[in-house]
Formats: sequence, structure tokens, C-alpha cells
Amino acid sequence: MEGAVTGEDTSVNLGWDVKEKTDFGTPVAAKILDGRAAAREIKEDLTERVRVLKEEHGITPGLGTVLVGDDPASHSYVGGKHKDCKQVGINSIRRDLPGDISQADLEKVIDELNEDPATTGYIVQLPLPAHIDANAILERIAPDKDADGLHPVNLGRLVLNVSEPMTSPLPCTPHGIVQLLVRNGISLNGKKVLVVGRGVTVGRPLGLLLTRRPINATVTLAHTGTADLFEHLQAADVVVAAAGFPEMIRAEELKPGAIVLDVGVTRVTDPDTGKTTLTGDVDPAAADVAGWISPNPGGVGPMTRAMLLANVVEAAERQVGILV
Amino acid sequence: MEGAVTGEDTSVNLGWDVKEKTDFGTPVAAKILDGRAAAREIKEDLTERVRVLKEEHGITPGLGTVLVGDDPASHSYVGGKHKDCKQVGINSIRRDLPGDISQADLEKVIDELNEDPATTGYIVQLPLPAHIDANAILERIAPDKDADGLHPVNLGRLVLNVSEPMTSPLPCTPHGIVQLLVRNGISLNGKKVLVVGRGVTVGRPLGLLLTRRPINATVTLAHTGTADLFEHLQAADVVVAAAGFPEMIRAEELKPGAIVLDVGVTRVTDPDTGKTTLTGDVDPAAADVAGWISPNPGGVGPMTRAMLLANVVEAAERQVGILV
Repeated sequence: MEGAVTGEDTSVNLGWDVKEKTDFGTPVAAKILDGRAAAREIKEDLTERVRVLKEEHGITPGLGTVLVGDDPASHSYVGGKHKDCKQVGINSIRRDLPGDISQADLEKVIDELNEDPATTGYIVQLPLPAHIDANAILERIAPDKDADGLHPVNLGRLVLNVSEPMTSPLPCTPHGIVQLLVRNGISLNGKKVLVVGRGVTVGRPLGLLLTRRPINATVTLAHTGTADLFEHLQAADVVVAAAGFPEMIRAEELKPGAIVLDVGVTRVTDPDTGKTTLTGDVDPAAADVAGWISPNPGGVGPMTRAMLLANVVEAAERQVGILV
Repeated sequence: MEGAVTGEDTSVNLGWDVKEKTDFGTPVAAKILDGRAAAREIKEDLTERVRVLKEEHGITPGLGTVLVGDDPASHSYVGGKHKDCKQVGINSIRRDLPGDISQADLEKVIDELNEDPATTGYIVQLPLPAHIDANAILERIAPDKDADGLHPVNLGRLVLNVSEPMTSPLPCTPHGIVQLLVRNGISLNGKKVLVVGRGVTVGRPLGLLLTRRPINATVTLAHTGTADLFEHLQAADVVVAAAGFPEMIRAEELKPGAIVLDVGVTRVTDPDTGKTTLTGDVDPAAADVAGWISPNPGGVGPMTRAMLLANVVEAAERQVGILV
């Protein structure tokens, strides 16, 4: 097992760049939270909004990516993001930089993107090389160009409830989870939500979003230090598994009818064959117990990618004053 | 009933400026989380650290307060803060401003304090008059001078786990709660903590602090939208009542032996006599059921005040490079 991508690391990359899996196995009881379908709807909506921005406001949103070094997975993630941009008419700005770039030179690139009017929003692909002070780089991103919604100012506004109406970007995966539920007609009002995993991209910000008055869920954040996860799982109306431990949530631990969102993705290597597969945090048999379940892949992953595009489009809309 | 000061408003003021209550009623089973005693210890420690800053580094920490208008409660809170400063040797900088000050003039004061080397940290007393954009003012405070620990950048760093080691201030009440427990030898490792109330000064940031690895609690955030508070209370090892509803947490709802922190303070007016009293969120009879309980007043309140001083001293220590 390698790279529990939604675990405790600070990677903003959830490893969604996976091949489509067409065989979901035996028939299941749970209804499917189809992230690909919801993401498609969102992208259609964004395509129209990009058209309006271009035709009525003379602005084409642009997503910038900053990629340092030649990690193949990072290259693949960045490539996927630009492919997504193309689908909705967002321009791509790529800054692919050598792995030995200095802190000062990388900061210069950040400053350039902050100034560049063609770059509506951008991301810095993580991980950065060890010699780079990653936090200093991430904090240097102009908050209004923070496409990941993970700049401290934007997360702080989320704590303070001042990011409503949409004055600043929301973190992509938490926002994608909300959208996936909303688009399936599911309200979290008064529901008990158990979030498993205290990573900075999902677990820690998610409760801040779900406990707001318009969503109004009661949220528990569990993690490796939780003494009695089973008891929490038994009580939960909704389980968000974002721990990065393959199939850690077992079907028999869930309350029947629970809504289950499988966020974690871990690359598991078969010791005999050396073949790697991407595995979620939820035992596939959970589909026989849950009321709703997000497939993995095909659930939260496409939503995260769609919300990145939404952040770029919304930044452009804010710029021209049409986002309220 | 008026002014649920720890409720949903954005006031950073928890209304601790209260008269000492010497009669705690009938003898109780619970051990007392004595905030006055713990705050005294912290202030002794801070007094020594201020001495070192003065004598060895030639710097005297200074707390600035920005007070707009003539609300008597606000005046009283600000006065209390400066009294606290005097106790530990911190300089006071007061900017008392007319209630009709313009946004631009108030911003000018903020910019001056950001530049002023004598002001190590400062606070803007809330509420601000309605014609002022309070968020714009609060975000204008230099994050390293944010004595309340409520600037979005500092809260965002709390979400991202990048405020350890102490690179940025923590919000005063959450930090005070942790200190009150630690100084009574109580560990939250693996404990189930129920936070009641989703206000921005206590409830929303508290879980971010308690779920960090060094503290390692499992935290549930409950609020007015929670469907079954009783069930949550029955399960909780620790209850933090920060809702601003007088005596809403009843003794019979608690798990015997629970650790209870009473944060809320509400001004309750007797309709017959017109006399007002400050009332906590916890039924005093809870002391017969709880294992530990924080009195109110005299529990979390003095800790909040002490942590404000700690933020100012730590800002000075960071400035001279002696905080690690």
C-alpha cells in the first residue's frame, strides 16, 4: 500500500485520474450517488456561464497550474485539469518548472500569476520538492485566485461564515460532496454526519461547511485517535470516508440506509503480481446496506474536479460583478 | 433575556467582565475547573516572559484596543483588558473613536496600528456600528498582530495545521479551554467531545484545535439544528456549552462523570424587578453529576482573558525569535 492520498498529508491532489471501471459487481440495494453524472451537469452549466463571460463581458476564465519537477502522477493530474478546462471553454496556463527551482524563483512565478489578468485562478500542484517551503508558496497565492479554495484566508472565511454569498472560493472536495448530495435531492438538515479522516483537504474543512445554517448537519470528525469508531458508524445517518485506508469502512458497521460517501483513494500494490489498483475507503459490500453510496471511482472524484472549474468561473464572475 | 454573547453573533467579546460570585450553593460532587487559578498561573508565567523581553531583548509588548462609539459594555470589556495588561507588564495602547467614524478613517487607524512598533498585538472591539464593514476592518488587521486569533489567515492556518509550532496566534477561548484542561491534568486523547453552539469565536474553531494529533479528541459540533441533543449529551465524555442559551444543558442529560465546560454567558433580566444577572449555559445542578465542571463566572472566562495576553506576549517573542 502506498500513498494514502487523502490521509494526513497536505496534498490537494485526490488522485482522481483513474480509468473508468465499468463492472460494479453484483446488483446493489443502495442508490448510486453518480458523481460523473452530477459533474457533467455542473460542467454544462459552467460552459454556459463561460459563454456569457466571453460574449457579454469580454473575459475568458483561465486556470493556471504550477508544476515543479517531473513526478508522473503530478503530471497526469495537471493534464487532467487542463483537459477539464477545455471541455467548458476555460483557458489553460501551464507553468512547468524544473525540480531544482529555487524558493525565490518559484515565488517570482507566483507573483507573476497573481498579476496576470489571463489567469483567473490557479493551483500549485503538490507535493513540492523538499527544499521548497510549501506553506510560504501556498500563502503567497492571491486569495481571490486560489482555485483550490485552500488558501488560509479562504479557509478562515469559511470558519467565520463570511464566504456567503459566494465572496470567496470553497475547498473543492467538501463543496463537491455538498453538490453531489444536493443534486440527488438529499438534504443534510438535522442529519448526523460522521466524517472519518482529519486531512486538510477534506476532513478538517468539511465540517465547517456542513454545520452552516443553510446545510445544518450535526458533524462528528473521527480519525485514527477515535476510540470507538464502530459506535459512531452505527449512529451516523451519513458517513464520509476520507481517511485513506483501503476498505476500512465495513458494510456490517453501517446503519442500514446510511448515506455513504467514499472519498479516500489508496494505491494498493499486489505483492505477488506487482500490479497496483486504486482502492476506496469503503468495503464495496457496503452497497448492500447503505441507502445511497458514491462509487469510487466515479463518485466524489469527478465532483472535486468540477468544483475546481467552478472556482475559476466564479472568480471571473466575481471580477465582473455578476456573482451574487 | 438579552445578548446571548457566545451565540451566533460575531462578537469576540464573551462578556467576562463580571462581578465575582462567592456563593456557589450546595456542596458539589464535581471537581472544579478553576479558571481564576489557572489564569493566575498563566499570568505569572507571562509576567516573567515580559520581564525577559524587556531586560534581555529591549522590547515591551503592547496591546492595542480599537473602540468605536460609547457602548458601556464595550467600554467595560476594553477597560478589563487594559487592567489585565498592567498586571503582567504589557503596555496599553487605546484608540477610542467616535461612533460616526467613517470606514476610511477607521481603516487609517488600523493601518497605523499595523505599522506601530509599540503595538505588538491589538483587537478591534465588537460590535462595530452598522455603517462600518466589520469584515473589511477585521481582515485589514495584520495577521501577526491579531491578538484575538480570529483573523481569517490565522483561522485558516488552524484548519491547515500550520500554526504548530506557535507560528501564529490561536483563538483565545478555544485555547483557554485547552489550557484549563491541561493545567488540571486532563487529557482529551480519545475522548468524545460534544461542542454545543456554532458561534465563530468558540464552537466553530474549537473542533479544529481539539482534533489535532497532539490533543486527539473526537469532536461533534451540535447546534440549534441538531435533532437529538440528548443522545449526544448522553454519549459525551466532555461537553463544551457555548450556545448562549441560559441553563440549556440540564444535569440529568449528562453522562455521570462528564467533564463540563460552561462557556456561554447570557444577560437575563428579571421581568418583575428589572434586575439583570449573567447566566451560563449549564444548569448549576450539573455539578452533582459531572466529574469536572467549570464555574461560570470563574471558569473559561478568565482563561479567555489570559490567552489574549498570551497572544500579545507570543507575538513579541516571535518578533525577537525566542518562541519555538
